[in-house]
Amino acid sequence: MGLFSKDIKTMGDLLLHGLKDIYYAEHQIASSLPAMIDKATNRDLTKGLQDHLIETRKQIERLDQVFKKLGHEPRGVDCPAIDGLIKEANELAAEVEDKEVLDVAIVGSAQAIEHYEIARYGTLIAWAEELGHDDIVRFLTTNLNEEKAANTKLNTVAMRKGVNRKAAS
Amino acid sequence: MGLFSKDIKTMGDLLLHGLKDIYYAEHQIASSLPAMIDKATNRDLTKGLQDHLIETRKQIERLDQVFKKLGHEPRGVDCPAIDGLIKEANELAAEVEDKEVLDVAIVGSAQAIEHYEIARYGTLIAWAEELGHDDIVRFLTTNLNEEKAANTKLNTVAMRKGVNRKAAS
Repeated sequence: MGLFSKDIKTMGDLLLHGLKDIYYAEHQIASSLPAMIDKATNRDLTKGLQDHLIETRKQIERLDQVFKKLGHEPRGVDCPAIDGLIKEANELAAEVEDKEVLDVAIVGSAQAIEHYEIARYGTLIAWAEELGHDDIVRFLTTNLNEEKAANTKLNTVAMRKGVNRKAAS
Repeated sequence: MGLFSKDIKTMGDLLLHGLKDIYYAEHQIASSLPAMIDKATNRDLTKGLQDHLIETRKQIERLDQVFKKLGHEPRGVDCPAIDGLIKEANELAAEVEDKEVLDVAIVGSAQAIEHYEIARYGTLIAWAEELGHDDIVRFLTTNLNEEKAANTKLNTVAMRKGVNRKAAS
C-alpha cells in the first residue's frame, strides 16, 4: 500500500488495511512489553503485564487466522499511532525517578495502549459485521474481550492493589 | 521538563506531566478537527465533529482552570501518542478514494482519538483523587464524560445513521 496512492477503494480494502494496522500494533506491543515488565516493581503489575504478553502472542495467532480466512497473507502496515503510544510510554518512564511513581506511570501508559486496541478491535468488528464476514468476527471479538479484561485488571492493580496509594503517600 | 532528566519525582509531578500531555493533545485535536470536518461527507458525521470541536475548545478552558487551581501556568508537553494518532488519521484519509468509505475511515480515526482521551482523563482523575485534589476532579470528569458521549455519538453515526451500511453496499 503506497503512501497517498488512494489504494483503499472499498470498505473491504479499509477492513484489510485496519487488520494490517492492528497486526503491526500487536507485534510492536509484544516487542515492547518485556522492557516495560523489567521496569515495573509491583508484583501484581509485573504479573499482569507478563500474562498480557502471553495473551498478545495468542492474539497475533488469531489475527493470522483472520488473514487466512480472508485469503490474504498476514502482513502489517506502519501504524504511527502505536509507535507514538509506545514512544510516549518509554519517554515518560525515562523521566520518572521514584520506583513507586514509575509503576503508576506504567499502568497509565499500558491503559492508553489498551484503549487504542479496544477502539481498533471495536471498529474492525463493526466493519466485518457490515461486510458479512461472520467467520472473522469471533476471532476479533475474543481479542477485544481480552483487551477489555486487561484494562480492567490494570484498574484493579492501580486502585485496589495499592500502586496509586503507595506512590501518593 | 528535559528529556530523560528524571524530573518526575513525585506523583504530583506525574499528575502535572499528565495534565500537560492532555493539554497539548486537546490543542492538537482542536487544530486538526477542521480538516477532518472538511473531508467528511455524511451530515450527521460533519455535525458531530463540528459539535466536538466546540466541546474541545471548552475542554481546553476547563484545563486552564485545572492548572490555575494547582497554581501552575497552563502549558503543554510534547505528546507523541496524539501526534501519532493524528498522523495515522491523515495518512489513512489520504489513501481512501471513495467518499463513503472515507466517512467510515474518519469515524474510526476519531474513535481512536476519543479512546486515547478517555484513557488519559480516566487516569488523571484516579491520580487527582489519590492526591486529594478534589477541586480539579470535577473539571476532568466533565471532560471525560464529554469524550465518552462523543465516542457513543460516533458509534450511532456509524451503525444507525447509515455510514457503514452505505460504504459496504
